[in-house]
Amino acid sequence: MSQKRMVQIERDILSKNDAYAAKNRQALAEKGVFALNLVSSPGSGKTTLLCRSIGELKAKYPVAVIEGDQQTSFDAERIRATGAPALQINTGKGCHLDAHMVGHALEKLEVQDDSLLLIENVGNLVCPAAFDLGEAGKVVILSVTEGEDKPLKYPDMFRAARLMLLSKVDLLPHLTFDADKAVEYARRVNPALEVIRVSTTSGEGFAEWLAWVEKGLAAAK
Amino acid sequence: MSQKRMVQIERDILSKNDAYAAKNRQALAEKGVFALNLVSSPGSGKTTLLCRSIGELKAKYPVAVIEGDQQTSFDAERIRATGAPALQINTGKGCHLDAHMVGHALEKLEVQDDSLLLIENVGNLVCPAAFDLGEAGKVVILSVTEGEDKPLKYPDMFRAARLMLLSKVDLLPHLTFDADKAVEYARRVNPALEVIRVSTTSGEGFAEWLAWVEKGLAAAK
Ligand SMILES: Nc1nc2c(ncn2[C@@H]2O[C@H](COP(=O)(O)OP(=O)(O)OP(=O)(O)O)[C@@H](O)[C@H]2O)c(=O)[nH]1
Ligand SMILES: Nc1nc2c(ncn2[C@@H]2O[C@H](COP(=O)(O)OP(=O)(O)OP(=O)(O)O)[C@@H](O)[C@H]2O)c(=O)[nH]1
Ligand SMILES: [Mg+2]
Ligand SMILES: [Mg+2]
Ligand SMILES: [Zn+2]
Ligand SMILES: [Zn+2]
Repeated sequence: MSQKRMVQIERDILSKNDAYAAKNRQALAEKGVFALNLVSSPGSGKTTLLCRSIGELKAKYPVAVIEGDQQTSFDAERIRATGAPALQINTGKGCHLDAHMVGHALEKLEVQDDSLLLIENVGNLVCPAAFDLGEAGKVVILSVTEGEDKPLKYPDMFRAARLMLLSKVDLLPHLTFDADKAVEYARRVNPALEVIRVSTTSGEGFAEWLAWVEKGLAAAK
Repeated sequence: MSQKRMVQIERDILSKNDAYAAKNRQALAEKGVFALNLVSSPGSGKTTLLCRSIGELKAKYPVAVIEGDQQTSFDAERIRATGAPALQINTGKGCHLDAHMVGHALEKLEVQDDSLLLIENVGNLVCPAAFDLGEAGKVVILSVTEGEDKPLKYPDMFRAARLMLLSKVDLLPHLTFDADKAVEYARRVNPALEVIRVSTTSGEGFAEWLAWVEKGLAAAK
């Protein structure tokens, strides 16, 4: 297959995805739902963070979760243990969620008016960057165990995100990671990127992160 | 585009890749080169491990490195600082190395007879699994910071690998990670998988890992 033909196919896939994403976005807006798309490397702490966040938010707002993984329903089960409804999408060979999958998930999942929808993407710092799911924003999670250079080496994802959560900061005393440098690199590829340093283990930064979510919820109403 | 057409396109891409991989494999065999394809999530410690490994092996064997990253030449520069030649491939939007790229890299890179070739793939636990580069084997690196469940949740990569390096074991005292469980999960998807626990920081497991490489080098001669 020629390079030109490949580029054409990719463009077709993305433009079809964008049409589905626009439909999702409209449906979510009509219900006043605030939807976030959580993207990161595998194991940066997405599900652990979601579970704690739901625990702290569920008394005030209805929350629903869409979980994307190649295999297993482990993450959806962890979410359901918090009491929130969760729908698992298994992508099989696939490396990212797309807007069509999310549209079908929205048909099955009970998403209430004026609620929070958390979409955990497949752990992959590359491919999900290109796929709009209809979310209000992408939240990229970078664990301090991954090294400062990731924003420069995987720039598309950091450019696509609205917020970066620098996660697992409780481990900083045991690492050589320079958090200021990581933030500087991230803002070099995306000057408008907001940043919050968090640890789900210690709770550090959670007040700030939850306030950020609540601001989004209020704006989406 | 129909699902059927998509599957057909993917099959075409993979079969073309396999043809290039076969050419690479033959060229490497003729020179007695032992080639490894290092695959993992972003930041599991591939480059750090390669730098230390080269430091310990270079007195005995010639080593060359191909580095795959979306952007920057940081990893190739880190390798060159050890004295080994390194060629950087930037994949841009691409999420994995393919055999065609590696074939061109082999034209440019000085790969000596009876030497070691280390190919560091783009940090991505999904997409590189499907792409044979012509290597003797894939080495998957799983950092203990990523959680035990990764082999079950991202099974293709652990199935495709010959060896798993469980990395950053120096951090175990600060984590809740159960290393035995991680190994059990990895062997559940790939019963033949070899496993070595390593820390590049402390040097734990390095004697075993380097002995594994030397066995491969001897067999490739
Ligand atoms: N030290 C520390 N470990 C954490 C923290 N958050 C999560 N972890 C650990 O990180 C590992 C991965 O956590 P997960 O929540 O499964 O990560 P994930 O991003 O959902 O992983 P995938 O969905 O598989 O990509 C687990 O071993 C967690 O216990 C944190 O704040 N501090
Ligand atoms: N504690 C500890 N940290 C390590 C170890 N090996 C690497 N690191 C740290 O892990 C981070 C990532 O290391 P890299 O070697 O850049 O990882 P990588 O897999 O090459 O990353 P990419 O090529 O960007 O996917 C850095 O901050 C390293 O210092 C180790 O054995 N122990
Ligand atoms: Mg998860
Ligand atoms: Mg690297
Ligand atoms: Zn991909
Ligand atoms: Zn590709």
